Amino acid sequence: MAELVALLTDFGYRDVYVGVMKAVMLSVAPRLRFIDLSHDLPPYDVQAGMLALDAAWPYVPAGTVFLCVVDPGVGTPRRPIVVQSAGRLFVGPDNGLFSLLPDAEAREITAPWGLPHRSRTFHGRDLFAPVAAHLAAGAPFLAVGPRVDPVRRPLPLPDGDRGEIIYIDHYGNCVTNLPGRTGGEVVSGAHTAPVCEAYGDAGCGALLALTGSTGRLELAVRNGSAAELGLRVGSPVEWRATEARTGADDRRGPG
Amino acid sequence: MAELVALLTDFGYRDVYVGVMKAVMLSVAPRLRFIDLSHDLPPYDVQAGMLALDAAWPYVPAGTVFLCVVDPGVGTPRRPIVVQSAGRLFVGPDNGLFSLLPDAEAREITAPWGLPHRSRTFHGRDLFAPVAAHLAAGAPFLAVGPRVDPVRRPLPLPDGDRGEIIYIDHYGNCVTNLPGRTGGEVVSGAHTAPVCEAYGDAGCGALLALTGSTGRLELAVRNGSAAELGLRVGSPVEWRATEARTGADDRRGPG
Amino acid sequence: MAELVALLTDFGYRDVYVGVMKAVMLSVAPRLRFIDLSHDLPPYDVQAGMLALDAAWPYVPAGTVFLCVVDPGVGTPRRPIVVQSAGRLFVGPDNGLFSLLPDAEAREITAPWGLPHRSRTFHGRDLFAPVAAHLAAGAPFLAVGPRVDPVRRPLPLPDGDRGEIIYIDHYGNCVTNLPGRTGGEVVSGAHTAPVCEAYGDAGCGALLALTGSTGRLELAVRNGSAAELGLRVGSPVEWRATEARTGADDRRGPG
Repeated sequence: MAELVALLTDFGYRDVYVGVMKAVMLSVAPRLRFIDLSHDLPPYDVQAGMLALDAAWPYVPAGTVFLCVVDPGVGTPRRPIVVQSAGRLFVGPDNGLFSLLPDAEAREITAPWGLPHRSRTFHGRDLFAPVAAHLAAGAPFLAVGPRVDPVRRPLPLPDGDRGEIIYIDHYGNCVTNLPGRTGGEVVSGAHTAPVCEAYGDAGCGALLALTGSTGRLELAVRNGSAAELGLRVGSPVEWRATEARTGADDRRGPG
Repeated sequence: MAELVALLTDFGYRDVYVGVMKAVMLSVAPRLRFIDLSHDLPPYDVQAGMLALDAAWPYVPAGTVFLCVVDPGVGTPRRPIVVQSAGRLFVGPDNGLFSLLPDAEAREITAPWGLPHRSRTFHGRDLFAPVAAHLAAGAPFLAVGPRVDPVRRPLPLPDGDRGEIIYIDHYGNCVTNLPGRTGGEVVSGAHTAPVCEAYGDAGCGALLALTGSTGRLELAVRNGSAAELGLRVGSPVEWRATEARTGADDRRGPG
Repeated sequence: MAELVALLTDFGYRDVYVGVMKAVMLSVAPRLRFIDLSHDLPPYDVQAGMLALDAAWPYVPAGTVFLCVVDPGVGTPRRPIVVQSAGRLFVGPDNGLFSLLPDAEAREITAPWGLPHRSRTFHGRDLFAPVAAHLAAGAPFLAVGPRVDPVRRPLPLPDGDRGEIIYIDHYGNCVTNLPGRTGGEVVSGAHTAPVCEAYGDAGCGALLALTGSTGRLELAVRNGSAAELGLRVGSPVEWRATEARTGADDRRGPG
């Protein structure tokens, strides 16, 4: 698929920032089409951006250009880059946002594709959007600029069965850095959650754990919000075996 | 119009869930176009989804495929279905979401159109989105699967002139299940609102009632929020005649 | 570029109002494409709409039709108009929303392009959307209706170096009506902010001032929110020279 641009930012929906970036891109390449991945990432939260990209990119058609702006260092010397990974191109600031992409090759943007006047507060509009549009319209990755070694930012790693909450979604589901599994239970502070297979496997209002849609263990409340129990990004979690349960019980959960 | 998909979910705008569904659909049918009806329905609120569909579908061109996911039972045995109504197709869970559609005919999804791996937490991505894409690209309704009798969920019915608030919108306008009318007043708890014809017919900050854009009586505050007066979904309301008013006053309201 | 419609409203994202307007437009002109500028303007806030248009329109391709609805007077005798400015057309209510557009020529909408039934609460759906679609599909501006003198609404003007906050964005950046400049400092109540050139020029958590992306001085907190310091739309601000600083310090800020 040619001429598809996927957007991911922390710009929010109140202002015209996202629309202006799309307008700039359409001025460069009038036939572009857009997919909005999210514009409501927590402000300045590069880790949330990394996880969002990780969850989304495998489902987006190869050949797509991603315009990704979570950029607390805008206007400072942090580099603007384009990353090539898995047949897709990713445009944005070099602050670790692209750390989870496999086999990434990065180039610093030196091509003269930006707007004539570049502000020091909105490179999404003045630089990244026109670069994304040029690439989506067919400009080659090689023309972006010289190869660079991009900033790498690690996710917090689990220590065996001990990990932490790394993301909280719209429903209040608390995603951990523990890999998905069946059986046992997940403990966080005073809370203990049996590992189920679906949100509906627990009673309404009960805390449960399950393997979420990105393959990580998450804590959830059926028809409710686990986050409202006081769980936060960074809260410690631990998986424990539960010997008293039978395999059948574990597969279906308690509900 | 071919190849138009209208989306309605409670997924919110923080996460990449909606964008991932669009990406999956474009992988199946690259020329699809999308209309977002809402992705900020109250979480798990099937009734809000029913009302949103009811307000929107008559304005959406015939031939459109609707992808509708408000799905608290994801991963449980609730059936995935496609409903045909009024020349449109509606894809989603069989939990009553499609109850207000006229002359609906439903089929359970057994066609092998889903993604190869189906999670138990995100059928929007793994099943409903690819099914919607196949239908929008021309797959026939008959190929979806066997006919089924879909779950029917009634709206709360008014008792004569007594009803209740069934939805509160972005402005704090409180939509009731009473049919639209002119004249009289609407009482809810300690609040009394004259029936006007337009928001501007009342003074700023004054509570009024009027026939909203979906034909139901609603309570509103000009340049303000009726919800902030403490009105909630489920709050009782009653329409009453006001004999002292003249017809002319009733038509123009008090403002 | 033909057949592009840019949308700007205070409708929010919870309800189906925006999607229904797009559906109505696609019923008139199936090949239309849309750019959403914002749908989360503060409810009823015409000034916020004026500023959003001012920030966005220069980046949107000439020939685009703008559908702009911030309409507290819907259903009252306020006129529906179309404004022609800078090679673009703007459709919406005549309440001052288009005051900042240059060399504007306005016509009242009398052409029979609206839906057959016009409610008194949702002219976006019943009138403005179909009018925008007809114009985007090629109907001439001259056919809209008779020329009128549109309502003009001024922005608050600064008094020399004294001005006020006129808009607060998603990040809590507080935009003033003072023109952008370098050097000196901006004072608001108990707060004093050095004028920097980029958000990253200050320490995290420190208040700074800079020339924002629309050319006005704004107050910001690096990786934080200036609005959380208690600043509001209407708060007074004053620019002052700071003689003790060197030019070099001023250019780079304190960080």
